[in-house]
Amino acid sequence: MKAGGRSPAREGVSEVAANGAREGHAAAWGTTTVVGAAVPRVDGWERVTGTAVYPLDLQLPGMLYAAVLRCPHAHARVQRIDTSRAEGMPGVRAVLTGASPGADVPWFPQRGKGPLSKLFDPHCRYAGEEVAAVAATTVFQAREALAAIAVEYEVLPFVAEMEQALLPGAPSIHEGGNRQNETLRYQRGDVAKGFSEADAVVELSFQTACEIHTPMEVHGSVARWEGDTLTVWDTTQGVFAVRDALASALGLPLANVRVICPYMGGGFGSKLGLNKHTVIAALLARATARPVKLFLSREETFLCVGNRPPTRLTIKAGAKKDGTLVALEMKALGTGGAYPYLPTSGYLVADLYTCPNVAVEQDNVFINAGPGRPFRAPGYPPCSWALEQTIDALAEKLGMDPVELRLKNVPVVSQQRGGVPYTSTGLADCLRRGAEAFSWQAARGRARGKGHLRRGVGVAAGMWGYDGEPRATAFVSLFADGSAILNTGASDIGTGTKTVLAQVVAEELGIAPESVRIEHADTGTTQYAPASGGSQTVVANAPAVRAAAQEVRRELLEMAAAELGRPQTELRLAGGAVVTPEGTVHPFGSLKALVARQPLVGVGRRHPHPEGKAALPFVAQFAEVEVNTRTGEVRVLRMLGAQDSGRVMNQLTFENQVFGGIVMGVGFALTEARVVDRQTGTVVNANWHDYKIPTMKDCPPELTCLPVDPQDRECNTVGAKGLGEPATIPTAAAIANAVYHAVGIRVTTTPASPVQMAALLERHRQEG
Amino acid sequence: MKAGGRSPAREGVSEVAANGAREGHAAAWGTTTVVGAAVPRVDGWERVTGTAVYPLDLQLPGMLYAAVLRCPHAHARVQRIDTSRAEGMPGVRAVLTGASPGADVPWFPQRGKGPLSKLFDPHCRYAGEEVAAVAATTVFQAREALAAIAVEYEVLPFVAEMEQALLPGAPSIHEGGNRQNETLRYQRGDVAKGFSEADAVVELSFQTACEIHTPMEVHGSVARWEGDTLTVWDTTQGVFAVRDALASALGLPLANVRVICPYMGGGFGSKLGLNKHTVIAALLARATARPVKLFLSREETFLCVGNRPPTRLTIKAGAKKDGTLVALEMKALGTGGAYPYLPTSGYLVADLYTCPNVAVEQDNVFINAGPGRPFRAPGYPPCSWALEQTIDALAEKLGMDPVELRLKNVPVVSQQRGGVPYTSTGLADCLRRGAEAFSWQAARGRARGKGHLRRGVGVAAGMWGYDGEPRATAFVSLFADGSAILNTGASDIGTGTKTVLAQVVAEELGIAPESVRIEHADTGTTQYAPASGGSQTVVANAPAVRAAAQEVRRELLEMAAAELGRPQTELRLAGGAVVTPEGTVHPFGSLKALVARQPLVGVGRRHPHPEGKAALPFVAQFAEVEVNTRTGEVRVLRMLGAQDSGRVMNQLTFENQVFGGIVMGVGFALTEARVVDRQTGTVVNANWHDYKIPTMKDCPPELTCLPVDPQDRECNTVGAKGLGEPATIPTAAAIANAVYHAVGIRVTTTPASPVQMAALLERHRQEG
Repeated sequence: MKAGGRSPAREGVSEVAANGAREGHAAAWGTTTVVGAAVPRVDGWERVTGTAVYPLDLQLPGMLYAAVLRCPHAHARVQRIDTSRAEGMPGVRAVLTGASPGADVPWFPQRGKGPLSKLFDPHCRYAGEEVAAVAATTVFQAREALAAIAVEYEVLPFVAEMEQALLPGAPSIHEGGNRQNETLRYQRGDVAKGFSEADAVVELSFQTACEIHTPMEVHGSVARWEGDTLTVWDTTQGVFAVRDALASALGLPLANVRVICPYMGGGFGSKLGLNKHTVIAALLARATARPVKLFLSREETFLCVGNRPPTRLTIKAGAKKDGTLVALEMKALGTGGAYPYLPTSGYLVADLYTCPNVAVEQDNVFINAGPGRPFRAPGYPPCSWALEQTIDALAEKLGMDPVELRLKNVPVVSQQRGGVPYTSTGLADCLRRGAEAFSWQAARGRARGKGHLRRGVGVAAGMWGYDGEPRATAFVSLFADGSAILNTGASDIGTGTKTVLAQVVAEELGIAPESVRIEHADTGTTQYAPASGGSQTVVANAPAVRAAAQEVRRELLEMAAAELGRPQTELRLAGGAVVTPEGTVHPFGSLKALVARQPLVGVGRRHPHPEGKAALPFVAQFAEVEVNTRTGEVRVLRMLGAQDSGRVMNQLTFENQVFGGIVMGVGFALTEARVVDRQTGTVVNANWHDYKIPTMKDCPPELTCLPVDPQDRECNTVGAKGLGEPATIPTAAAIANAVYHAVGIRVTTTPASPVQMAALLERHRQEG
Repeated sequence: MKAGGRSPAREGVSEVAANGAREGHAAAWGTTTVVGAAVPRVDGWERVTGTAVYPLDLQLPGMLYAAVLRCPHAHARVQRIDTSRAEGMPGVRAVLTGASPGADVPWFPQRGKGPLSKLFDPHCRYAGEEVAAVAATTVFQAREALAAIAVEYEVLPFVAEMEQALLPGAPSIHEGGNRQNETLRYQRGDVAKGFSEADAVVELSFQTACEIHTPMEVHGSVARWEGDTLTVWDTTQGVFAVRDALASALGLPLANVRVICPYMGGGFGSKLGLNKHTVIAALLARATARPVKLFLSREETFLCVGNRPPTRLTIKAGAKKDGTLVALEMKALGTGGAYPYLPTSGYLVADLYTCPNVAVEQDNVFINAGPGRPFRAPGYPPCSWALEQTIDALAEKLGMDPVELRLKNVPVVSQQRGGVPYTSTGLADCLRRGAEAFSWQAARGRARGKGHLRRGVGVAAGMWGYDGEPRATAFVSLFADGSAILNTGASDIGTGTKTVLAQVVAEELGIAPESVRIEHADTGTTQYAPASGGSQTVVANAPAVRAAAQEVRRELLEMAAAELGRPQTELRLAGGAVVTPEGTVHPFGSLKALVARQPLVGVGRRHPHPEGKAALPFVAQFAEVEVNTRTGEVRVLRMLGAQDSGRVMNQLTFENQVFGGIVMGVGFALTEARVVDRQTGTVVNANWHDYKIPTMKDCPPELTCLPVDPQDRECNTVGAKGLGEPATIPTAAAIANAVYHAVGIRVTTTPASPVQMAALLERHRQEG
């Protein structure tokens, strides 16, 4: 792996911004020394040595272990549950069913939707739904006892695939049928007219498979009651979101629920909200008056904590000879399984390129399968798979280079948002500079090979259209010894949030990032932050943290100026000291006022863009693949991600995100698919052996991260835009386009596994 | 026990204050509904059911247990320590001595004094000093291993009593001799001239015994390292004080040390600062890379964590015929044992009564005994024992009623502070209203009995002269469901701090105190508060908490006014709702802006009195005793505490403090004394069997608490003054004066045990 954008610190920016910063207001930084540097994780030590206590590691005195009994049928109705034998099993302290006190909890899988189900619903709508739970002294006793719970099911006919859902006579998964909602439509201009004016039109249909998040850390919670106050250690991306939903589920005041996530081992969206197992742990803890730990097995996490739903997409695109897009149309069908969820997103189609006439239709049905859930750029990768292959095909039809066609249609305003300007659009830079760094022209023109190993290169572009909720608060406390405490509710889901926020404090206060102790992700003791997701963690929190640090900085400079008898404007902060223009160093500890009043405490909040401009990230990715025409294997030889996410806050964490996004996209493109047995409606590859996520051997041996920093000092007070999600959006399409370039086969269905590729290659040979 | 001051809520106060409150500024409350009420402890449930996790209860995975080897000699020098056998004992993980890495820690028993000693000092200055420590898998293994540490001591001659300390040839406890400091002198006016003008002069000499704090909860810590960050759960009254001293002892940045005290089981001053065992636990945890729990045994707490030092006092008082005091003189000798500490306080003598001519001399020596430490009203009870008995004798000599003599000399300004006015002086009210409620006149005139059971009544007055450091910060967060979180660094040392502060939040925000969740006493997550001591906990923190709640209140009212289209001044907060003048109730949850922006967060700080006035509490106590002239037993039949501590924040906690103070004073007067064996210099009653603290049977069967609220709305923004310490200051003297009234014997030495009383009665009979 190599990085294209390394430089020790960033300079430049306009006079205005630098002046603003000097005045102590929330203007962008001028030159930075800590922000932007390749600072290693501040919590790396405890993570790699195993001393970090993740919720799974937590041991509480007297703690019990719980396990959940799940419906083995794709569709069934519980007629009777007999828990008496289980209750008598060794070590068993409590058995919970829907009939237990307090367990009749309505379940809202989606905000604003009514209770379609219950915590333990007798109507089981997919294989894996919760039927009962046990708390016992050991986890083995708890799982043993599950087998002793006798359940009588009425097994019902089921719907395994979305095409069957709306067929006449299909089993009804919810009252009112299997259509989740009326067709969602977005339209601007007149697509019919647009297509009639086009010189070239392409229409292609696609399918994407259901993908499972399967983060390294399994899902689970530890629940402990103290009186009527509940503390939960949860594997979550958003302690506040879980707190709110849990309080609502249990009918508790918000202040009586404390949710803590000291360390997180990945979520990718599957840990964004409240899970049933958390409520079950809380109910079992209340019933037994003991702390209860309930962690899912790896297999369970494949069934019930979400997935990237399967989709069917048709895209039609029309352009003028010169490449100007005149019409775009998408028709999408998807399924969030047995519960409401929107599997596709029209945003990408509507806003990635300038196009006057756009129509999007999204349909969504229920089937008897596990629930959909936000998954790194929810809705985007499937739509990118379809849109960016269609654009590739359109370029071919027009006889244009695919990079050139995209450059022709780069947007400067958000059309979907009614023409709101972007604070910056780095898409053109991503395409141009990415192509140059990738040697696109040379690679595109190179011979593709003659034997059974064929090479090709492809490109795809992307954007991410979510800019989050505007709330976030942070506190910063500075001590006279140059150490500081940062208090933020943000979760560090493995992406380096703590490190980046420590850099912000360090930059502002002239101290080392290692001197910043971080209290985070605890609803009882830390300040509100949105859930870490939607590529919003740095965007939402860094401005709040910077504002808090600036408040401390102002107070510190005031003190220093008074004590040293110098104007504030002459003083700067560095190395835990106040430094005069002559270079005299006054360590913070030498300031009497600071020693007397320490710690200085600053409170900072995030503010939305004053003019409501859109601050969105853009991306272009380039792939080179080798297709083995004998075996159908596709190897990704190299990839380059050119990323406009504004300021690079930390070179290491930036690269981590880009490389991680690409690897995840490789899995989406080539290996990952949940397999549901049509005979039984159950998942047959619910484990890491049969469900193939990319391993090190599947990663492209050459990975390049190219930050295309548009020096956007307007998007917010730190200059950073979203990063985590755009980095994975176009990967699969870029690979598919490279495959097409290599062998002339348009792979429309994920994953492009050897089995599928072998079949496509065979057909291609026959059709010759 | 009965309470004299109950009234459901308080009304009145001036127009000005009420107007101020209406404007939203920090003026005093008008009518209150929650503040002042008898609200039960908000944490009572978990305390009485045993679910509260005190530091002693804490269990951490892999935790080791530690024990400390202590010097058995009153004075000795360690020549050699052999730990090899101990290191091989079962379960032993580490043995720590002064030679261990990082254990050469200088020890500062007093702020601003140099390192007179070390964590493990080879020069052991009292029986009980730390010599070595062991961490092992169980506490039994750790204690077993102590016996296997071979120590060679050079036993030195010792000083057991303060009178011996300055004799020629006395063994030197520190280089430079046994005088801790030059005589401390305070003087105003001319005492010689004063006494020459007096119509009556009395001079008496007194002794007070060394008293041990011995709170219910023993002292100890649990230490855990995560990298170079140390977390300590400590039994402490001041997490920030311990944090600062611990960081300094270990050379760590302040932000890297987190001190937490979730529940406290009493301290009375003995848990105000850092203890050696906390540092030892931290060093052992670092050496073993495991959490370490180190708790002292009950016996150890009698030796090394402080005491109320013994004193010798002489008081001379002179007055005019009409009772006007003209001269007061105190000469005091005390000893803080082997380390610096000031055992007496001249403040009481200098400021309790108006007197133009005052002289105080305080001497202080080292002896080979455990260290002195602040103990509920440090320095005051011994001085009160002497002063208030001398005033009693003076009244007799003048033929005046002791209440009248005191009333004659009630101060209106602080003479010690150069005439600074008091915000209020409730002393006259305490004396007058207390005497009335006690039926003083009738009881004083009643026959004292003729048989062997003689009754008498006595009075003593007091004040407390410390008004603390002005810093304290608090955060309050309010949710739309009417629940709130209060974040304060204050420790609740068992006095009900959490309850009172919850009432302040509840009062200000119109919610129930039970709706306030409290995060407290955690240097990592809560805001700075001074150590809970010096009767400053409510005084320092309640104004900061109120200011934080007021900020929330202002924001909430702004939102409500905008949303309801009403002027803010019309709206009030009650029952978790905004209420209009017509009585329409808008629950907080119905305010859209609040739901969208919750929680509202307010930050509050304490501010000192703008004109620098003194806000100090006053007290008068009345005792009735029965002396058994055959056995020497003194029974306290009833006591009344009339207390000017400003506003009664909570009737229950107010009474708790007054009754607790009186019971502690009963122990000081009648039962408590550390006994040091003159032959060995060791404590022979270091346990609850031989050291007599009052039990329920020793408590006065009739206890009355009479709050004398001077409606002081100026002392601070809540109107409360100190309470915990003044409540115990005059108790012993009131009892001694009652004994004198009963049997005509002036008991000058504490405790007035049956043994001493029998001897005094016998001498009295012989002299009679």
